[in-house]
Amino acid sequence: MKAEIISIGDELLIGQVINSNQAFIAEKLNSVGVFADRMTTVGDDEQEILDAFQKAFTTHDVVTVTGGLGPTHDDITRAVVCKFFNTDLVLDNEALENVKRIFARRSMLPRKVNEDQALVPRDCTVIQNRLGTAPGYFFERSGKFFFVMPGVPYEMKAMMNDFVLPFLKKQNTGLVIRHLTLKTTGIAESFLAEQIGDVKNLFSPDSGTTLAFLPSPLGVRLRITSKAKSVDEAEYSIRDVEMKLRSKAEKYIYASGDRELEEVIGTLLKERKFTLAIAESCTGGLIADRITNVSGSSEYFERGMITYSNKSKIHELGVPSDFIKQYGAVSRQVAEAMAFGIRTKSNADIGISTTGIAGPTGGSAEKPVGLVWIGYSDKDETFALQFNFGGERRIIKERAAQAALELVRRRMLKISEQ
Amino acid sequence: MKAEIISIGDELLIGQVINSNQAFIAEKLNSVGVFADRMTTVGDDEQEILDAFQKAFTTHDVVTVTGGLGPTHDDITRAVVCKFFNTDLVLDNEALENVKRIFARRSMLPRKVNEDQALVPRDCTVIQNRLGTAPGYFFERSGKFFFVMPGVPYEMKAMMNDFVLPFLKKQNTGLVIRHLTLKTTGIAESFLAEQIGDVKNLFSPDSGTTLAFLPSPLGVRLRITSKAKSVDEAEYSIRDVEMKLRSKAEKYIYASGDRELEEVIGTLLKERKFTLAIAESCTGGLIADRITNVSGSSEYFERGMITYSNKSKIHELGVPSDFIKQYGAVSRQVAEAMAFGIRTKSNADIGISTTGIAGPTGGSAEKPVGLVWIGYSDKDETFALQFNFGGERRIIKERAAQAALELVRRRMLKISEQ
Repeated sequence: MKAEIISIGDELLIGQVINSNQAFIAEKLNSVGVFADRMTTVGDDEQEILDAFQKAFTTHDVVTVTGGLGPTHDDITRAVVCKFFNTDLVLDNEALENVKRIFARRSMLPRKVNEDQALVPRDCTVIQNRLGTAPGYFFERSGKFFFVMPGVPYEMKAMMNDFVLPFLKKQNTGLVIRHLTLKTTGIAESFLAEQIGDVKNLFSPDSGTTLAFLPSPLGVRLRITSKAKSVDEAEYSIRDVEMKLRSKAEKYIYASGDRELEEVIGTLLKERKFTLAIAESCTGGLIADRITNVSGSSEYFERGMITYSNKSKIHELGVPSDFIKQYGAVSRQVAEAMAFGIRTKSNADIGISTTGIAGPTGGSAEKPVGLVWIGYSDKDETFALQFNFGGERRIIKERAAQAALELVRRRMLKISEQ
Repeated sequence: MKAEIISIGDELLIGQVINSNQAFIAEKLNSVGVFADRMTTVGDDEQEILDAFQKAFTTHDVVTVTGGLGPTHDDITRAVVCKFFNTDLVLDNEALENVKRIFARRSMLPRKVNEDQALVPRDCTVIQNRLGTAPGYFFERSGKFFFVMPGVPYEMKAMMNDFVLPFLKKQNTGLVIRHLTLKTTGIAESFLAEQIGDVKNLFSPDSGTTLAFLPSPLGVRLRITSKAKSVDEAEYSIRDVEMKLRSKAEKYIYASGDRELEEVIGTLLKERKFTLAIAESCTGGLIADRITNVSGSSEYFERGMITYSNKSKIHELGVPSDFIKQYGAVSRQVAEAMAFGIRTKSNADIGISTTGIAGPTGGSAEKPVGLVWIGYSDKDETFALQFNFGGERRIIKERAAQAALELVRRRMLKISEQ
């Protein structure tokens, strides 16, 4: 089945909001064998919305619509849906109870604009909203499926998981599509492509299998896609390509699928019963933030320090003040002393540190913006590696955090840095 | 002038990558009076791309295309552009020099696939790429403008700023569009709407001015839009509405435009020559990460601690171990002791702290997931506020960080919490 994903909202057209709903919906549709081949975004404009509905409904089996169901005056999607399906509004008692329940939980009384959200198009199946006040709508017409959901991401996500996906899963019978992504870091796209060599050696061109290179500032992802007649067949093809890719580039692949580097490290630390302590200067807390995004990270992450000033590097971590005077705060010696200091102070198994110049100011010819030293310390060794990251302040912070986490992974797996 | 923004890439259609380019391009086009009224995303498929080009070129004055210009086999945009404009490829020497220069900077030799990126469609104006190896292309046909750029965000952004926007600015003569966004936090959408009252009291319906409510987990943004015949007229209308909104909801408005809460706080701290110290438990470094995203934050941010364990709360911050035993780590008493401890230890003017249950595990009936205490301490007062945040682990961390930063803002401005 082919799908079109429609997003509605002036805030999208003027670029005020990044549309993350599209990606979520597309990925979830894929998982039930529905393939989006177009995504369209239009504003809060009746004629534009009607045109988009018409076009999508003519050419696609499944249409998802998000946005414009809120309680304020600029939300017009519900009215346009009624016009498109030539129907009017009726009160849905379950939706009204839901509005009252949500307000009661906050010890508040709903306003009339909130209660009015329980008015829904006649002749649709109402998709109840566990997490918010705007219900969704589902229409089935001439064997085609039309889903309307709020634009608030977590409300839409709950409706997708509770209603849309279970429904579509039951309908689908055609080709099966499976993806696997291998995430790499620390190698540029063209060098990775060279390591992997000609893709014709991975699969034959007409096998229904494809490989895509997806670069980002934090690394290149390799996405294997297989379209096949059965799940088994698709998964077999993917595993075959995965093994060939791993034989050529294993050292750079830190995870597959959705797994983040911080989750991989968490698992490795837990397996070894290791603890990690972090001393951050230029990354400013970002490494600890990523580590603590993982549920259960308190098992291996005991404490972190953000030692932004020289004084705090000296007092909290025991960095010799002579090092800072002689080599500067951004130096191999200080990075090593920070990693050693945080490890010994907190009795952790592994200590890591960052010190660098995130910019845009503070750089010099000798120490330019983007220069970052990453320190590592465990009971056997203490050392630091130098990096020169490109990009603006935030990108430099992100790249430094990624490199520090990757260093921990490689040391635990005894992967050489060369 | 009306624009369509086209994005190309299978990675977008399967939801692997969130499309942030659309929002950036839309916002920038707006700033030169070009208004996007449709955004379309298609895959790496010749026919789909050709159809999208045809449709956009027929109905719009300006078309931007991003994606599919990379060096690997799955990048087909250049070939489809040649087909659409009925042309072939020629070598561009400046683009070739650029490829060589970029590789030389990394002390590497370009591969053939990299050098081939200097082949460009005949008859186009080449948009040079300062930051990467893939050049962009510009076509002008029948008074319409067609821009093709790489999908890598920072490369595209540089081309927009260096080439696309200066060019379009010179062309544009029609209506002027201006936006202003007021960012609020700490108040729900419907309550904010009630505070503001009937929008008809802000502007007349046919004035060319509109107001939109844009909710997110971190707060509701109010976007004022004015379309007018001159910049002066548009800006006058916007300022008028802004003043009316501020008179009704000033306390919740922490910034206007693109400004982030951490920038606002940075300015307030600098004005007062105050320093800030942060002790984070459940937010895990996110507050410090946000603070240090601001260039120059070292002036007022001296250090932070991520005291994830009870032991570190006691040893680093001097939280009495009796407090933890008697009230639990997630309690008013511990939040207060953490804020006081980090402030006095680091000699900062203001100390803030977070302790809470980010979930998904660790909650109880008495202390559910989402419960967060935020502590505040300065020379005059030390207190903590209780919050109950909804959402998953990451959202709870983000909401807690936002509330902590907002608390600092309100205390510096002596805004009451009631």
